[in-house]
Amino acid sequence: MNINIPYNGIKYFTFAESADFLLQNGDLFGPITIAYETFGKLNDNKDNSILVIHALTGDTHATSGYDMDDSTPGWWDTMVGPAKPIDTNKYHVICCNVFGGCMGTTGPSSINPATGNPYGKDFPLITVKDMVNVQKKLIDHLGINRLKSVIGGSLGGMVALEWAVAYPDILETTVIIASGYKTSPQIVAFYEVGRNAILADPEFADGNYYDGKGPQKGLAIARMIAHITYLSKTSIEDKFGKNLQEDVTEDDLLKFRFGPMFAVESYLRHQGRKFVDRFDANSYLYITKAMDMYDLTSGGATLLDVLTNIKSRTLIISFDSDWHFTPQDSWHLVKAMMNLGKDVTYVNLESPFGHDAFLLENGELERVIYSFINNSKGGK
Amino acid sequence: MNINIPYNGIKYFTFAESADFLLQNGDLFGPITIAYETFGKLNDNKDNSILVIHALTGDTHATSGYDMDDSTPGWWDTMVGPAKPIDTNKYHVICCNVFGGCMGTTGPSSINPATGNPYGKDFPLITVKDMVNVQKKLIDHLGINRLKSVIGGSLGGMVALEWAVAYPDILETTVIIASGYKTSPQIVAFYEVGRNAILADPEFADGNYYDGKGPQKGLAIARMIAHITYLSKTSIEDKFGKNLQEDVTEDDLLKFRFGPMFAVESYLRHQGRKFVDRFDANSYLYITKAMDMYDLTSGGATLLDVLTNIKSRTLIISFDSDWHFTPQDSWHLVKAMMNLGKDVTYVNLESPFGHDAFLLENGELERVIYSFINNSKGGK
Repeated sequence: MNINIPYNGIKYFTFAESADFLLQNGDLFGPITIAYETFGKLNDNKDNSILVIHALTGDTHATSGYDMDDSTPGWWDTMVGPAKPIDTNKYHVICCNVFGGCMGTTGPSSINPATGNPYGKDFPLITVKDMVNVQKKLIDHLGINRLKSVIGGSLGGMVALEWAVAYPDILETTVIIASGYKTSPQIVAFYEVGRNAILADPEFADGNYYDGKGPQKGLAIARMIAHITYLSKTSIEDKFGKNLQEDVTEDDLLKFRFGPMFAVESYLRHQGRKFVDRFDANSYLYITKAMDMYDLTSGGATLLDVLTNIKSRTLIISFDSDWHFTPQDSWHLVKAMMNLGKDVTYVNLESPFGHDAFLLENGELERVIYSFINNSKGGK
Repeated sequence: MNINIPYNGIKYFTFAESADFLLQNGDLFGPITIAYETFGKLNDNKDNSILVIHALTGDTHATSGYDMDDSTPGWWDTMVGPAKPIDTNKYHVICCNVFGGCMGTTGPSSINPATGNPYGKDFPLITVKDMVNVQKKLIDHLGINRLKSVIGGSLGGMVALEWAVAYPDILETTVIIASGYKTSPQIVAFYEVGRNAILADPEFADGNYYDGKGPQKGLAIARMIAHITYLSKTSIEDKFGKNLQEDVTEDDLLKFRFGPMFAVESYLRHQGRKFVDRFDANSYLYITKAMDMYDLTSGGATLLDVLTNIKSRTLIISFDSDWHFTPQDSWHLVKAMMNLGKDVTYVNLESPFGHDAFLLENGELERVIYSFINNSKGGK
């Protein structure tokens, strides 16, 4: 199993060699390697950097548009690149793989120097705050004291929000897309069932499966469950309806057993299988758990208490058909920031594509982000 | 594994001993035993029967209220019983386990007389129409030519709708609750993932698991997925929020691994485990597939074509927070019937409880059903 993708431009920064990185749970951990790519040039003032944060299963490769020899699509090619809304002719874009991930940054599939084997379940339970603190080490390493923006969708939006709360003096702007200050219990429930499917797979082997084939079936099921929540009811209806899959005829239907009959079924199975080839099941467990635990109001804090520190201009974007992170989830955050008199802009965009909308070409999404970043109001 | 529940009042009727029951797929099948209970007395005219149809995982035991010695709760105790909205002092209520089920009626866990072993995957792929035709045999056996009503929710609503279409001259009224003329592709997708979880469990053993413990983990995961779709987003929020489960403290959180942290997680795991003790995984595969395949417009028919036969007064009920079968799903049916000039009544009830609402005490639901059944307009 080799799931690390060696993009041409990938770079690595290793720190905490003496295991002195303080986790939110109070333990010390290290070493930590952070994998990252940069697109565009850092200016002399070192104040033109935009940190772009990927979602649950993303990686460092935000765009293929910067390097003309690069034929590997980036996960946000619609947004990041030369003359794109996040313009790499103007900005120095940094995209790093999150702590706990499996695309180059230290995670449960990394080698534990104490044993010479992958950490597996000996990897510590990490949080969104830990992800931010690891990224902060990279920003310091690059000599950057001021970020033009931190931008992310879904998990990336939580990470961006946590940046704005934890490091208010560093950020000029924050863009939080299709996200919230906590995961709703409905979405926790779906992720929990997905985790159960991984844990129930005999190939999971208590997390130490790196010599075997790993919990491929369990991970595929987890991905399929989550994938349905990324699509809207209408986008599934429009894309598949009750169409039969290609090699199935109406006559076959009643002779069939339990293979996929409908196009939506074979599509989902394909999504599940494809995911298994590129993602580590332990990373899936750890990162979804970090998302589920993230809650700015845990421990009895009010949202007003926590958000009061924020100094960056903030743009919050939701999509009307998103039921994974709903417009209501964004609105809770917006209301609290407005109550605090913060400089916050909220846009609820129309899209039929549900939660996935933030990764797709939208038109308005690109214009809104471009205007917001390049608007000097309240900025430097 | 013994999942058949021998209720005191359960009765059995066996037919098609010479394997001459014609399935929708064109094959002949038999023998078929149908398990049923009756509550209330059949009158001399034999025209006071109400056929109550259970949902995906239900059984014959609609009520415990009729027999005072019966301490086993019925699945619809709020609705059926003496002086209840479906009044067993007045009506003869029949509730049978559906064809393909595992609560007494012939299904994949029944013994195949040809082999002496359970059918397993040799059971034929059955349809909602087959379920209705099997129930029709029971009605004939009881000497009933006219049903006061056929009533069901969810799968039971599909079965009731199919009764109204297939046997228009027998039904005086039809009540279709939280259902539709087809399952939406979103819900097909969730059931498909559930079926995948069962098929992926090594204990499934290609469906011949009756000597072993069976695919308990897979079935539990399938149930957990479906269960989330039975609840509304707000009912999960109201019931659990992000409350921690009983023995977990805030301090524990960051020391935890992948056991359930939140109350909603342990609730779901409990639902999964409980289900495995009472339901057969093969029945789950066959019945969910029958639901997914049900579509009155398959084969190119229009809804108007198919519904034109209906002669019964029809009551269609949806719940505003139901996203498993949405108000829109009911409304498609209602519009078509109104276009055809049929005697149809539609009520969209308020409830925070999502799809589960039809099984819960509601107040309005009970009154609406009582009034509709007892209203003589257009009836006999």
